[in-house]
Amino acid sequence: MKYPNNMVKKRENNISYGNRGMDLEHLLNLSNRYYEEKNEALIFKKPTPIGIVDVHYSERGKVIDKAYFKSPSTLDYNGLYQGKYIEFEAKETKHKTSFPLHNIHPHQIEHIRRVIFHNGIVFLVVKIQNLVYLLDGQDFLDFIDSEKRQSIPYSYFLEKGYLIKEKIDPPLDYLRIVDQVYFGGNL
Amino acid sequence: MKYPNNMVKKRENNISYGNRGMDLEHLLNLSNRYYEEKNEALIFKKPTPIGIVDVHYSERGKVIDKAYFKSPSTLDYNGLYQGKYIEFEAKETKHKTSFPLHNIHPHQIEHIRRVIFHNGIVFLVVKIQNLVYLLDGQDFLDFIDSEKRQSIPYSYFLEKGYLIKEKIDPPLDYLRIVDQVYFGGNL
Repeated sequence: MKYPNNMVKKRENNISYGNRGMDLEHLLNLSNRYYEEKNEALIFKKPTPIGIVDVHYSERGKVIDKAYFKSPSTLDYNGLYQGKYIEFEAKETKHKTSFPLHNIHPHQIEHIRRVIFHNGIVFLVVKIQNLVYLLDGQDFLDFIDSEKRQSIPYSYFLEKGYLIKEKIDPPLDYLRIVDQVYFGGNL
Repeated sequence: MKYPNNMVKKRENNISYGNRGMDLEHLLNLSNRYYEEKNEALIFKKPTPIGIVDVHYSERGKVIDKAYFKSPSTLDYNGLYQGKYIEFEAKETKHKTSFPLHNIHPHQIEHIRRVIFHNGIVFLVVKIQNLVYLLDGQDFLDFIDSEKRQSIPYSYFLEKGYLIKEKIDPPLDYLRIVDQVYFGGNL
């Protein structure tokens, strides 16, 4: 039975390569679309806020002639899961030993504090060492508040983070970790 | 004691005029900023989604040279209140007798159904006859699903809607209606 085994292996390799080639944002967007189609959750990437400088009116509507990107004061993704508010930021780093904190703006750190205050679910999704971790917002703040380092060492993700499985569908099944961490669910 | 009374009256008049002159979006943005500052809720207007056609890189970062507005498939505002997900669309109409349904895209109607399915709080904020009403998402869907009319008559807002008080701070205190309708709160 060598043939079927090889087939499976090849397929897994392909998918793994596929996922690895795609950036984190794309994998999360595919996962969110999957969750939406399966009626599991409604989570979307927010449009990047822009400042519009010039527009003109064409037959087909308003056209923007000049605009710039604003720096975000909230996180990348937000939405609804089982009645609860959920918000997270997704970042990947090429660094092997740590996640540099300049990836998260000071406004965003304040925002994370506020979401926790209002009992929302908030976390980071960080791709480091080609693995994807969910780091709870409070664990992130605990690090910031107690350490003076400018980056979170990889060991902190091993200690406090939750590894998100890469799958076929959805490519990043982060809601299973959300179940475990925020809903006390049985996986 | 004529002077203080007049003062008060004048002040109220000014504020009232002020509110009336501002569009609904602006009043809601001010209200949301008030709620954020008072640690009551975190609710933001989503950036309008745009499609970017051309960019160039300047010394100060990426600059958009051409873009267009996409039609939204979700609602204008979303956020977090007491752990719950909240989403709403704000519209004003100059029509005196009804609210034309073409104001809400078919994608948005589907989105309202989904938010209800996932136990989120969802509603419309409609300014009609210079009054601002909150209309619950399910009441909106009930109208759409049972009527063939292309607009919601004003009488439906009187029957099913909740009048949102215009105040000084916040200018539109819609969370008090949310307390009443979705949290069974005592006003």
